[in-house]
Amino acid sequence: MNYKFIIQYDGTKYSGWQKQGNTSKTIQGKLEAVLTQLAGESVEVHGSGRTDAGVHAYGQVANAHFDTMYSCEQIRDLMNKYLPQDIAVLEVTKAHYRFHSQLNAKSKTYCYRIYNGPVRDVFTRNYTCHIEEELDVAAMRKAAALLEGTHDFTSFCGNRRFKKSPVRTITQICVEQKEKGLELWFTGDGFLQNMVRIMTGTMVEVGLGKRPADSMTEILEAKDRSAAGAMMPAQGLTLVSVAYKS
Amino acid sequence: MNYKFIIQYDGTKYSGWQKQGNTSKTIQGKLEAVLTQLAGESVEVHGSGRTDAGVHAYGQVANAHFDTMYSCEQIRDLMNKYLPQDIAVLEVTKAHYRFHSQLNAKSKTYCYRIYNGPVRDVFTRNYTCHIEEELDVAAMRKAAALLEGTHDFTSFCGNRRFKKSPVRTITQICVEQKEKGLELWFTGDGFLQNMVRIMTGTMVEVGLGKRPADSMTEILEAKDRSAAGAMMPAQGLTLVSVAYKS
Repeated sequence: MNYKFIIQYDGTKYSGWQKQGNTSKTIQGKLEAVLTQLAGESVEVHGSGRTDAGVHAYGQVANAHFDTMYSCEQIRDLMNKYLPQDIAVLEVTKAHYRFHSQLNAKSKTYCYRIYNGPVRDVFTRNYTCHIEEELDVAAMRKAAALLEGTHDFTSFCGNRRFKKSPVRTITQICVEQKEKGLELWFTGDGFLQNMVRIMTGTMVEVGLGKRPADSMTEILEAKDRSAAGAMMPAQGLTLVSVAYKS
Repeated sequence: MNYKFIIQYDGTKYSGWQKQGNTSKTIQGKLEAVLTQLAGESVEVHGSGRTDAGVHAYGQVANAHFDTMYSCEQIRDLMNKYLPQDIAVLEVTKAHYRFHSQLNAKSKTYCYRIYNGPVRDVFTRNYTCHIEEELDVAAMRKAAALLEGTHDFTSFCGNRRFKKSPVRTITQICVEQKEKGLELWFTGDGFLQNMVRIMTGTMVEVGLGKRPADSMTEILEAKDRSAAGAMMPAQGLTLVSVAYKS
């Protein structure tokens, strides 16, 4: 049976989604350990995509093939019982045997949170990036609009050795003003490595008056990482949801 | 000079407000260490009251007498620079030399947060108590109303050797229904040790149908800790604000 999972995690203490030498520090490693125990066979978990060290997920999607006599709800409850407190399985459903969380993903939504003010907020310190200076939200929105659409995002890719197509379609970037900061929402068919954090960093430089909003067009045309701004820290980023063809 | 501080902290990693043998694990200890460094003399910090291990503060108030050439804003910024990330000073002001954060406090507001649902929420796990079962909010509101007013709260006091007057006035208890849980707001002229957590625990038992709402009257009259319900865990509790006579 192929199971589909919706997973939430606080990425603060992990070295990211993808398992590495030391799987005990990755989300994928934690999930596989619990499912292997539950199924009594070695289980491999496929995620919709990697998240970097320190990045969070509100609705990461994964799938895994294994057999068990437990119901979906029992699998969910057992996983939550044995997973650490900073990872939770929100939903387990039976999927078509060919369903693949990464290959079938149609679009993804990320949110980057900025806490704005003179003093840090202790309760959201692991889920926001703190910027003390005021930000020009109107200019950031203008920059955001220029990044929407289908573009070659090489300038916003953190992996200089990336060999596949760097063309992606961003359907929407919303800059939302909150009581104590900003939320930048990105929806697109896919994102290159560090792309959301580099786009946010470049838009923050626009918000701080360090570069004009309309420079986004030149940055895209440059197809050169050094044309864009600095990458924002991981802790402000959350993978909110992954959409599939229904 | 007597300085007044408004302080925010995530109490997760601390053994509470009040300094003990090992001051490195208390909020008071951390504040005194930073202020002693800043003032170049031994500084004692007085809080509006103790918070237990694991309890948070959104607006704890404290005061301390010392002399410095720094402005209030500079003191705030320096403290925030040297304090750990889970403690923040929101405001520093000059106070009357006789101002005492505990003795002059007129009322305090606490909030107890309950996350309600089948699966825990990883992002609020340190700031809420997770209850899976449904709660009867109407019954809890009825119980809350019976606890408002001036009463002998011995039944809700966690300290069996408490020798001062156990009479307190609760001006308001609000049970707010949130998207994914409840917030219980308590305002009163003062609270006995563990009182908010024991009142919340007793009201939760009402919400779960384990005791009737109108049993609050008998519990108050019993003046016996064993008449009330269980104490809720610390992590759901936040000291929101402290009010003073203006």
